[in-house]
Amino acid sequence: MLLLRRCHRLTPFGPLSVQRYQVAPVVASCTVRLSSSSNEQRFHQHGFSWTRALAGILAGTGVVLAYGLRHHKAEQADVRDQTVQMRSSLPVISQAEVAKHRSLKDGVWVTYKGGVYNITEFVAMHPGGDKIMLAAGGALEPFWALYAVHNQDHVLEILSLYKIGELSAEDLKKQRDVKSSDPYSSDPERHPVLRPNSLKPFTAEPPPEILSDSYITPSVFFFKRNHLPVPQVDPASYRLHVEGLPGGVLTLSLGDLKTRFPKHTVTATLQCAGNRRSEMNKVRQVKGLNWGIAAIGNATWSGAKLRDVLLAAGYGPDVTQWARHVQFEGLDKDITGTAYGASIPIGKAVSEDGDVLLAYEMNGEDIPADHGFPVRVVVPGIVGARNVKWLGKITVSAEESSSHWQQNDYKGFSPGTDWDTVDYKSAPAIQELPVQSAITTPAEGTVIDRSAEMLTVKGYAWSGGGREVIRVDVSLDGGKTWQVAQLKSSDKEEDPQTPPPLGRAWAWKLWEITVPLPPEAQELEIICKAVDNSYNMQPDTFAPIWNLRGVLSNAWHRVKVKISEDNGEE
Amino acid sequence: MLLLRRCHRLTPFGPLSVQRYQVAPVVASCTVRLSSSSNEQRFHQHGFSWTRALAGILAGTGVVLAYGLRHHKAEQADVRDQTVQMRSSLPVISQAEVAKHRSLKDGVWVTYKGGVYNITEFVAMHPGGDKIMLAAGGALEPFWALYAVHNQDHVLEILSLYKIGELSAEDLKKQRDVKSSDPYSSDPERHPVLRPNSLKPFTAEPPPEILSDSYITPSVFFFKRNHLPVPQVDPASYRLHVEGLPGGVLTLSLGDLKTRFPKHTVTATLQCAGNRRSEMNKVRQVKGLNWGIAAIGNATWSGAKLRDVLLAAGYGPDVTQWARHVQFEGLDKDITGTAYGASIPIGKAVSEDGDVLLAYEMNGEDIPADHGFPVRVVVPGIVGARNVKWLGKITVSAEESSSHWQQNDYKGFSPGTDWDTVDYKSAPAIQELPVQSAITTPAEGTVIDRSAEMLTVKGYAWSGGGREVIRVDVSLDGGKTWQVAQLKSSDKEEDPQTPPPLGRAWAWKLWEITVPLPPEAQELEIICKAVDNSYNMQPDTFAPIWNLRGVLSNAWHRVKVKISEDNGEE
Repeated sequence: MLLLRRCHRLTPFGPLSVQRYQVAPVVASCTVRLSSSSNEQRFHQHGFSWTRALAGILAGTGVVLAYGLRHHKAEQADVRDQTVQMRSSLPVISQAEVAKHRSLKDGVWVTYKGGVYNITEFVAMHPGGDKIMLAAGGALEPFWALYAVHNQDHVLEILSLYKIGELSAEDLKKQRDVKSSDPYSSDPERHPVLRPNSLKPFTAEPPPEILSDSYITPSVFFFKRNHLPVPQVDPASYRLHVEGLPGGVLTLSLGDLKTRFPKHTVTATLQCAGNRRSEMNKVRQVKGLNWGIAAIGNATWSGAKLRDVLLAAGYGPDVTQWARHVQFEGLDKDITGTAYGASIPIGKAVSEDGDVLLAYEMNGEDIPADHGFPVRVVVPGIVGARNVKWLGKITVSAEESSSHWQQNDYKGFSPGTDWDTVDYKSAPAIQELPVQSAITTPAEGTVIDRSAEMLTVKGYAWSGGGREVIRVDVSLDGGKTWQVAQLKSSDKEEDPQTPPPLGRAWAWKLWEITVPLPPEAQELEIICKAVDNSYNMQPDTFAPIWNLRGVLSNAWHRVKVKISEDNGEE
Repeated sequence: MLLLRRCHRLTPFGPLSVQRYQVAPVVASCTVRLSSSSNEQRFHQHGFSWTRALAGILAGTGVVLAYGLRHHKAEQADVRDQTVQMRSSLPVISQAEVAKHRSLKDGVWVTYKGGVYNITEFVAMHPGGDKIMLAAGGALEPFWALYAVHNQDHVLEILSLYKIGELSAEDLKKQRDVKSSDPYSSDPERHPVLRPNSLKPFTAEPPPEILSDSYITPSVFFFKRNHLPVPQVDPASYRLHVEGLPGGVLTLSLGDLKTRFPKHTVTATLQCAGNRRSEMNKVRQVKGLNWGIAAIGNATWSGAKLRDVLLAAGYGPDVTQWARHVQFEGLDKDITGTAYGASIPIGKAVSEDGDVLLAYEMNGEDIPADHGFPVRVVVPGIVGARNVKWLGKITVSAEESSSHWQQNDYKGFSPGTDWDTVDYKSAPAIQELPVQSAITTPAEGTVIDRSAEMLTVKGYAWSGGGREVIRVDVSLDGGKTWQVAQLKSSDKEEDPQTPPPLGRAWAWKLWEITVPLPPEAQELEIICKAVDNSYNMQPDTFAPIWNLRGVLSNAWHRVKVKISEDNGEE
């Protein structure tokens, strides 16, 4: 708090330039913040509110887009290095001393590029939760290499406020001698048509019109949503461990999975909890990847039934007495060895009709690296985040996964809940998703020639929990009148489209409607909304479903197009 | 058509008085319509559109409110009798001749109070569907006694257009000698606080504030929704027949049900598909009972599990190959002996977790007559209409119930679908209902004294399919800002409220929030909206979910109240 007060005292003197670094050493510890001047005024006007704003940048663990900023990184790097390497008159502290401060009781100290920081007070404000404690007593650099979201000026501004000393030159040299490696360097190549939302971890979606071109989304175009670097898994040495059951640990090789259990194939749509977040962002900025409408895809998945594997591992009537959840851990791990984790309710996992797969094929081929090679769990009807990739461990438990992604992230809150008031325990982890639909074509802003006379609108519709989409209503006049679109469950128009068994409609419907261009209109506001077989409907607008993480963004999709009167006649 | 043309010719002369009856006998057959002059202009302006308007009045089988009109009945009765008994110069026709006309091919003739009517052309327009054919070749009176909805002037207007003759005096006398009895005469007494929507069949809801006063709705206040007269069932001779299974018909007495099968108790909310229809009516008139927000209630139900009874009747793995539905028939029958019927998917019926009961107790006592004495099926999470009362027969089948209520009524359609374009087969029968909530207090128009300072808002929230309500958002400013209400699963505030098993949240949540009166506001628009654990939300407004039958009316509930500045100081 001393440092903060010092910073506040400077405000009457107006913005400080970098030149002041030499003048007042105490000021130097504040100048990292000041070197990024655009946020300065806001900072002084609102006092601590900047920490809340920052929550947005940090939100979750590596969930925020650094993509738009990375173009500026190179030019800013020199200034930043200057800044952080500036030696102050603060005390010199040894790594041994830093290492003693690894708890809230003893204080939480970290180092970054030769500076020592006491971040004890920040721990509670860290949007990534307790993960920050992993860095206590040591260097931040390896963590920030993993969670590239931290590579932003705002984060450095925050950090600077907690500076208490300079790391001894000897210890600094030691740190620099440790070779830093980019944990994302072995990530697979991706198709250039994908539109990345972040590069490390890699998250990307295809152009929306690709989705409605094929009932089955080709794997290469299927949205990617990694939380950590893609692990390199050798299929020959791959082992899946099934734990928590009376029979002890069952360990299965990939061959075991393929030969010991019947192979099932399920066509299932996976959707990211944050799909369409960009539309919610227009109401008020939320924290998370700025997904368009294409963080969703439909694939065929083949593999062993989780139910069969659990039965083989000792699941039985006695287990039902205490088991409530099945936890999954990926082989994708952060620098401390903590794996990506999630869980699903036991009922879904063991139900005959739950169709949960330990999938080793996607669209008839080995699952690609970005989608979980060699094995991912596919939980039809459930949010993408629980469909754990690079599956390494399954644990039957009385408890949900304790992972950050289960406990804090991927939950929905009221529009009135903000980062000050959020109580993560007050909301259940997202499992089944609500009914959803979007228009894949035409795109926003398309100009349609009047002479075309007819307009074809296409899109997708899906609902969670195996609830079948039974209708999609389309409006061309902003919601005043509605027409019913044609639903498709196949690319072949002639297909008889046998309806899926009740409660097991895991795959989306594509839909299409061709309508005459309204003769008078110069602009159309096209809207779609879907209805599932529980007759749940999409909400009309985003503001009332706004939530601080920008998940569950399923209000009507609206696309405006113009009609051009120019017939091209000469 | 001849008659219609004759009527049209009269229009230049303006409204006709009753005195003209004597002048022109041909006119007499039109005057029934004219005696109700308010609709005359519309009739002539829009030609045949009145038949569609009428569909609203007749819709379904006895589903439209006659309640508001019944006060006028007594005074109108004399005029009507005069009208219909007026003998015209039309040919005299014998009952034997009428009886020959019982098909579309031979023509469909009926008699009513001495008149003979050829209604062949009307058959296709009858909103009650094919049921009208039951009356072919005979008298309408006994049917109209059963479906009291027909007792409206508009219906007589329509009928008059099809008059082709007078029944012979001898046959008329015979008809009158048949004692007419009111099939509703043995209906039970009801509590006067109930607000009837129709009397025959009896449908009524309690004042909304009663709902939030008790987590368990007392049976006497539980909404009533009968489709036919309440049958008188002697519990000693009561038999339930279970059919369609390999073992043949299983017949069970009430004693069998109570002693041969374990007794289960489930707390479950039942809601009419038409609950809150009155709000949808404000968008555009729909066809159906004008329910407020209280066609919903929460009760404890005790009885045998349907699953146990089906197993006892021979349900087994072989049956799963072909069985898809379980059909129910009530002991409530129309004049032809056709019972009320409905069906549910087999999966729901036989699931361990489906909790479907053959209930013989409601709130710890014998089920009251209005709620299905001695046995009703209780299908938690499913629309009220499938919770068949006075249960007489259960049939396991590959098909849904063929009843009107399953095939045509109780389905949802697009707002763009009207009575001209509706294809009943295009929509699935409603089973699970979407998420719902409403404000039970304060009531619309309440004036709140500013000196109260605080305002308490209460209501209910529920979702179908066992999906638990996890949050209710309340706004005092028309939806601009939202606060989270406190949810209650018990009347005792101290109750630990163990959450129900996942997917088996059959009972509603009551909710409550106490907030300071906004200092500036003179009027508040209070809104509530609920979220279930699939994160489905209620739609914002009614117009986009409007449907011709006015079912599934679950948009946000809005209540306007005024704040009075008068402190009562002298």
